[in-house]
Amino acid sequence: MMMKKTILALAALAMSGSVLAQALKPADAIKTRQAGYRYLSWSVGKIKANVEGNAYNKAEVIAAARTIAAIANSGMGALYIPGSEKDVGSVKTYVKPEFFQNQQEVGKVAQDFNREANAIAEVASTGDAAAVKAQLGKLGGTCKACHDKFKNRD
Amino acid sequence: MMMKKTILALAALAMSGSVLAQALKPADAIKTRQAGYRYLSWSVGKIKANVEGNAYNKAEVIAAARTIAAIANSGMGALYIPGSEKDVGSVKTYVKPEFFQNQQEVGKVAQDFNREANAIAEVASTGDAAAVKAQLGKLGGTCKACHDKFKNRD
Repeated sequence: MMMKKTILALAALAMSGSVLAQALKPADAIKTRQAGYRYLSWSVGKIKANVEGNAYNKAEVIAAARTIAAIANSGMGALYIPGSEKDVGSVKTYVKPEFFQNQQEVGKVAQDFNREANAIAEVASTGDAAAVKAQLGKLGGTCKACHDKFKNRD
Repeated sequence: MMMKKTILALAALAMSGSVLAQALKPADAIKTRQAGYRYLSWSVGKIKANVEGNAYNKAEVIAAARTIAAIANSGMGALYIPGSEKDVGSVKTYVKPEFFQNQQEVGKVAQDFNREANAIAEVASTGDAAAVKAQLGKLGGTCKACHDKFKNRD
């Protein structure tokens, strides 16, 4: 009951003003948030390859960093709707129950992630590979912090 | 043989300067491009709900439009690597063979899509719901044009 209430509150928070809440099915919410994370991860991987490789492609890093920032700012919280706390048929979710029980902590890790995601988009625009590498480390720290707290291992 | 050559050319075009080409497995390439399209589709749906509903949330539309533009500019072409032309085990792809046989046409539909995706991010920032609705129509037209040509039905 309390979990349900928190989920609703989280969803309301993320979707204030949106009329989409009702339209999304739990299985689609799970698939869509996982799609966002997968695309994020690909973008992070591209930046990593650029800062660790021999060639640095400024345009590619900028595009990847902007994608990371855009997804971070896209309101993913709206994808944690009631019914999406656990697997829906063959659609698995890796989110821990704790995610829905600690709104304050979720808000904090989300805020940390967004801040570092926006920062990497800014740093990328300078083309300074060393600065991008340092910022990628900070960003990765916020990914890990959330995974450690709220993600079950595959 | 010719198809393989075109795929390689497409991949090279999209990833010039990137060191990531070798790292991506075909199944992951398929999953990642589908993730991008799914996240795009969610973003389009949010804008649609805003311009067709009673409430218009400017911030939500801006965030969704920026996500669309960022994904459009993210270099998705790099996800059409050799080996990803057909299903890989249980990982299905809906891309038609024509996609890999007509580089010029793919370039055109991609360019059209990118142009309208960038335009919706600009229009969204004005908060003009009618203009956003009109631009969403243009954007949707470029999605459809590509699907009609290069996507098999589910």
